[in-house]
Amino acid sequence: MLPIESVPFHYNIIAQEGRARAGIFHTPHGDLLTPVFAPVGTQATVKAVTPAQLQEIHASLVLANTYHLYLRPGDELVAEMGGLHQFMHWDSPILTDSGGFQVFSLANSRKIDEDGVTFKSHIDGSTHRVTPEKSIAIQENLGADIIMAFDECAPPYDRAYNERAVARTHAWLERCMEAKKRPDQALFGIVQGGIFNDLRERSASFVSSLNLPGNAIGGLSVGETKEEMHQALDVVDAILPANKPRYLMGVGTVEDIIQGVSRGVDIFDCVLPTRLARHHAAMTRSGRLNLMNAIYKQDKSPIDECCGCYTCQNFSRAYLRHLINSREMLSATLLSIHNLYTLVTLAKEIRQAIIDGNLSSIIERFEKTK
Amino acid sequence: MLPIESVPFHYNIIAQEGRARAGIFHTPHGDLLTPVFAPVGTQATVKAVTPAQLQEIHASLVLANTYHLYLRPGDELVAEMGGLHQFMHWDSPILTDSGGFQVFSLANSRKIDEDGVTFKSHIDGSTHRVTPEKSIAIQENLGADIIMAFDECAPPYDRAYNERAVARTHAWLERCMEAKKRPDQALFGIVQGGIFNDLRERSASFVSSLNLPGNAIGGLSVGETKEEMHQALDVVDAILPANKPRYLMGVGTVEDIIQGVSRGVDIFDCVLPTRLARHHAAMTRSGRLNLMNAIYKQDKSPIDECCGCYTCQNFSRAYLRHLINSREMLSATLLSIHNLYTLVTLAKEIRQAIIDGNLSSIIERFEKTK
Repeated sequence: MLPIESVPFHYNIIAQEGRARAGIFHTPHGDLLTPVFAPVGTQATVKAVTPAQLQEIHASLVLANTYHLYLRPGDELVAEMGGLHQFMHWDSPILTDSGGFQVFSLANSRKIDEDGVTFKSHIDGSTHRVTPEKSIAIQENLGADIIMAFDECAPPYDRAYNERAVARTHAWLERCMEAKKRPDQALFGIVQGGIFNDLRERSASFVSSLNLPGNAIGGLSVGETKEEMHQALDVVDAILPANKPRYLMGVGTVEDIIQGVSRGVDIFDCVLPTRLARHHAAMTRSGRLNLMNAIYKQDKSPIDECCGCYTCQNFSRAYLRHLINSREMLSATLLSIHNLYTLVTLAKEIRQAIIDGNLSSIIERFEKTK
Repeated sequence: MLPIESVPFHYNIIAQEGRARAGIFHTPHGDLLTPVFAPVGTQATVKAVTPAQLQEIHASLVLANTYHLYLRPGDELVAEMGGLHQFMHWDSPILTDSGGFQVFSLANSRKIDEDGVTFKSHIDGSTHRVTPEKSIAIQENLGADIIMAFDECAPPYDRAYNERAVARTHAWLERCMEAKKRPDQALFGIVQGGIFNDLRERSASFVSSLNLPGNAIGGLSVGETKEEMHQALDVVDAILPANKPRYLMGVGTVEDIIQGVSRGVDIFDCVLPTRLARHHAAMTRSGRLNLMNAIYKQDKSPIDECCGCYTCQNFSRAYLRHLINSREMLSATLLSIHNLYTLVTLAKEIRQAIIDGNLSSIIERFEKTK
């Protein structure tokens, strides 16, 4: 194994508490302080929020979806426009997924073989083919700091499928490494294996052996129980190299972040904060508020008295309810700002708590409010 | 006539060029520098834009619609929430219309008599009645700095209707003045009269005689030609007191602002910048761009190279087109910011030009780009 200094994307752990870690991942677009929650900007925009507003909530990492951007506006156009950072005006780190998860989600309009996947576009029904090599080529055009290997995410309880998916994911990971050309992008491998401990072990061991700059845990929060997710994390945590960041893909509620960090996870992302915002729901540390509810009609208080976000500092629940009732776009913006702030700030506070040796108190406080 | 100092809302003209004026209108929420363009926040929000973004484009005055807010969330609720400024978090001046224009626009679902108007809500079909007294009571609950008299806006070419509408508008104005109780709101009278010079004269003379803190010109940009609008402005300008601000209601394209200022108008408002933004169009000083157009697909330039707004400083036409094609809300936000900035800044530059004795050069430049 190479000494850490010679790895282009190195990760420094600056504090630990139990299995939780506070670290710094160095990227071409700045240092990423972990644990970190990444807002999702599927189509090169975090829905309803400007980059300036994302900066105000101190978001650092933003995720974009390869599948969507490949189809529209096309990765070649993004490359021509100077890459994703310039195109969407986000100068901090960006992570792109491999497109795999979205393609496999197409269910009836895709066909998988050992070489790759053929699928029909959800936009116009046109036929496309993505292989590990193609996924890397697209992601190189997009130009994110962190790119993901093309993997196969199987239904969590299907043993036979998960065996095949793990084997395929491993073979495809090696092809992704082979195909990758840009030195300014960190390729993360992905651990699969569903709810099966031996498959998770096998996958984590294989992925770890490739000495990538970071590793991801996929195929969780897709239908399994919380206990099963935690067990999978426990198995993987014991195997993945400690000196590389771990990214738990597509996971990001308050509870999942706290539980994930406690099990050695450093990076989270989830569409939930912005999706809930468009459906009138505010996330808080202790639960959710549906702001369409009539009980908020004359409620002068903010969503959360303790929240420091722009929305909570300036607007009442009654005003937000009025915007929702009046079908005003501003409700999605203000709720997205609040929900994203809640998770971004939670990750930041957890980081500081780990540095202060104080994480257990955050966990206890959370358990009490449940 | 009272000396200007003893009028609660006084207006100081600090420079004039021809009939154009640069002034300061003192309100409880700060000094309004005129000429000024007011973004429209119909339902207590300028659509798709936060108050912080409005501040960034240096908007000073915001308009809200009495009809909409009376129906939803209700003016009493707004009063309970501390008034419109606090409710929508806008601490600069606000102007509310009287609800008259919206009610008369309901066409088939309203009935006018000498006392007021009975109409059916566009939201739930419920029946409501607004009189001059009721309009003032609603506007006092909303709490804007500038409130408008309840008037009747007739179709511009209907002579008989305009005669009746002018008489009714005058009678209702006196009732509004009688009904008004709050000393921290400036009531503006409204000049009507369609395209008929003698009616405009009669109306301007009557409204002027009441010595209100400001005066408005209604019933324009509702179907008449530009020449007819300019003639009406010329007639009215010669009669309205010079030491009171003049507000040209519902008017605000680049051309209309330039032409209006040249004819003695100080205040403008229009829904066009935000409405066009939601329909993918960008306003510039020389015309409009439809950003859905395929010619912008790979266009790296901003909407307007000379524009200093957040959108033009940071985003390409190609990115805006991508957002529009992908049905992303951010397109409405970024285009609204640009369009509002264009008009707010135009009014500001015109103001500075009047102070510098330089307005004619702005007019010439505009004529050349047409």
